[in-house]
Amino acid sequence: MATTITTNGAHANGIHLNGAKRAGISTDVDSQFSEYDKMNGFSPENIPPSEFQERIERVRAALEPANLSGLLAFGDCWRGANICYFTHFRPLDGVSDIANSLFFLPSTGSPALFVSQQCLLYAQTISTFPVYTLMDLASHLQAFSAGNSGKLGLAGAAYIPADLLDRVRAALGSVELVETSVLAEIKAVKSEREIALIRKASLLADAAMAAIRDTLADGKPHTERELALIADQAMLAGGAERTAYDSMVQAGPRSAFNLARPTDRVLQPGDLVMTDIGARYRGYVADGGRGFTYGPASKDKIAIVKAAATAVEAGLAEGKAGMTCAELNAVIQRSIVKSGYEEFSSEARGHGTGHGTGMDPEEEQPWIGPGNQTVLREGMVFTLKATITVPGVGGLRTERIVRVLPEGHESGKGLEALDQFPMELYW
Amino acid sequence: MATTITTNGAHANGIHLNGAKRAGISTDVDSQFSEYDKMNGFSPENIPPSEFQERIERVRAALEPANLSGLLAFGDCWRGANICYFTHFRPLDGVSDIANSLFFLPSTGSPALFVSQQCLLYAQTISTFPVYTLMDLASHLQAFSAGNSGKLGLAGAAYIPADLLDRVRAALGSVELVETSVLAEIKAVKSEREIALIRKASLLADAAMAAIRDTLADGKPHTERELALIADQAMLAGGAERTAYDSMVQAGPRSAFNLARPTDRVLQPGDLVMTDIGARYRGYVADGGRGFTYGPASKDKIAIVKAAATAVEAGLAEGKAGMTCAELNAVIQRSIVKSGYEEFSSEARGHGTGHGTGMDPEEEQPWIGPGNQTVLREGMVFTLKATITVPGVGGLRTERIVRVLPEGHESGKGLEALDQFPMELYW
Repeated sequence: MATTITTNGAHANGIHLNGAKRAGISTDVDSQFSEYDKMNGFSPENIPPSEFQERIERVRAALEPANLSGLLAFGDCWRGANICYFTHFRPLDGVSDIANSLFFLPSTGSPALFVSQQCLLYAQTISTFPVYTLMDLASHLQAFSAGNSGKLGLAGAAYIPADLLDRVRAALGSVELVETSVLAEIKAVKSEREIALIRKASLLADAAMAAIRDTLADGKPHTERELALIADQAMLAGGAERTAYDSMVQAGPRSAFNLARPTDRVLQPGDLVMTDIGARYRGYVADGGRGFTYGPASKDKIAIVKAAATAVEAGLAEGKAGMTCAELNAVIQRSIVKSGYEEFSSEARGHGTGHGTGMDPEEEQPWIGPGNQTVLREGMVFTLKATITVPGVGGLRTERIVRVLPEGHESGKGLEALDQFPMELYW
Repeated sequence: MATTITTNGAHANGIHLNGAKRAGISTDVDSQFSEYDKMNGFSPENIPPSEFQERIERVRAALEPANLSGLLAFGDCWRGANICYFTHFRPLDGVSDIANSLFFLPSTGSPALFVSQQCLLYAQTISTFPVYTLMDLASHLQAFSAGNSGKLGLAGAAYIPADLLDRVRAALGSVELVETSVLAEIKAVKSEREIALIRKASLLADAAMAAIRDTLADGKPHTERELALIADQAMLAGGAERTAYDSMVQAGPRSAFNLARPTDRVLQPGDLVMTDIGARYRGYVADGGRGFTYGPASKDKIAIVKAAATAVEAGLAEGKAGMTCAELNAVIQRSIVKSGYEEFSSEARGHGTGHGTGMDPEEEQPWIGPGNQTVLREGMVFTLKATITVPGVGGLRTERIVRVLPEGHESGKGLEALDQFPMELYW
């Protein structure tokens, strides 16, 4: 399919651009891409072409200071953030290249997206730059290699498949491929539109908790699986595309498992119940976590709920722009230790009390953990959490989604929670 | 956590086994693992411990003929079949080892599962063999390496992350790691319980199509996103855990995209609409596909729907045990060519007309494609499909889920479709 590159680098790719004005948006790039709206419908909530273009230039500008002559970003169907930062395209489910995609951004010259053959037409109609199949990856990288002696930065190194990485390396020849955190750091700071979408996803996750609460109020027996289903139905009813990840509901002894999947276990009065439920909405997710006691609960279970809430509240109260991730981590870690649960909490033992989130439930930056000197900046979005699991008693993970407010915000606060459901739950 | 290995290799791992009889199941292994039921509840639909044990021994027995001294099977959160064949455990969503798991099966000795630290307790309470963290992988592989000169077979080579494969190779030292299809071939043949679960998932996918049909009958405008949401809600309402993959609904010109995601595009009367929607139920999935014309449709669109249905029907009518995958592929391929759509169908051009399916939407065997001499056997489950996409007109993918019947089946047929929704849809 012939591609036409216009003077501002925007990609036409065979779609007639008639310059029709995009409703309410007056930037040149957005009107130039009004054909996207004709093809895909229009929603004011979606990230517009101009915002994708800004992101491309922001990342491009960060390459030279990072001593890179280009970026190669890997994303798959489920960990698509490195791709979705640049385009509405996200790969599809499968065991082959259908699930893979690479975004290539050289310091100078047009970016390019590489997808499987089956995804090509779709990707071309929602991207603002040229799209090729992964079969063409080698020739593009060889051309880059021939003209460049600098290093190429790789984003997504932790989960790129070995098979694909081998192909990339073979094509690069002598060009060095190095892991880079440039993209992770830039996408950690969210735009107003992104925050609005994450906020919406967060409220959908809240609706899931409300649905669980209301279901349990009937006093009838319910299994973990049923409650997870009810939670998911509530999120879809509110307009979620899907869950952000597979909903977790773990009751009684199973609430002591840090991560697990729901089973046919029936909730018992007196149980502590761990839940970790999130929604996906228009490319953005909420990664929520709440635990609750069910029926008349023992003091030790109530204390666990309270300690986790107290720890997260401490983080919410003290976090602010200008603080390092390590400092914020220490606030939550100290609270858990002070409550006496150091032995029962991975966060208290230094495993981190939060992570970046946005287009995927888990994103690399900002990681709220010991040693991370990254400074919190206005617009960063991440989770704050406390997990306490006591063998023989039970556990929970209390997790909030927060954004960093501008310094001197009128509220007087440094962080705003995007989800609103209460943390101390005794049902 | 101390592990106790009983004489038949079953894993106790600190859970008291009191030998209480599992309701309705009288095998020794199942009663031995009745603690699983206490922890996780019980459903007669679930794969019982005895069936997992049988699978382990079936794969173990296939190692020597394949010139392997062991198997290393990789699975992740979304492509978990290589793990889920052996245990109810499936990894969780994330960018780290949370999403990864390796199952190790030596020719002699206990199998072992490796999971992230956070998943350890969960995995131990639903697996019939020892479970360790991925931090222990190196020492186990080194021990195997020290005692073995044979080759280790790798399943999941196409999608194992480079980072994890490097760790595996470093630990194996001089033991050679080779890709193997042993596991893919064995798990292609499904048990009665598996077929029952796939059948249930297929009927849930059928319910999704019915919901779309019923929604469109109101004559009001509907977008692709809305219909995907309605489909997903119908599957959950029927008891699905979740979708098998992200539902696809593509209308008008977008129906010509082989793979895509739903947008805010409104369906227009006269559109051809492609859908690809599946459900997940208790560890098994349906991978369905149906297209339909919406409102008064042109002859060329009706012809596309008919040609795809005719091709799949030909496969359904002629497929049977004893035939090779290549022969069955040729039946569907010939039909598409005969209908005049060779140029517009990847299946007609030799890209394969079906794939294994079961625990994941796409499994490697049996691949219904040219050159594959694998013989169809009773109990194999796979999809049969015809995708026709005509630029400027539209397209669809008609996909059925089928099982191979025993030779001489009373119905006189060789294949049974597990999904039941009609293929020629003119709405």
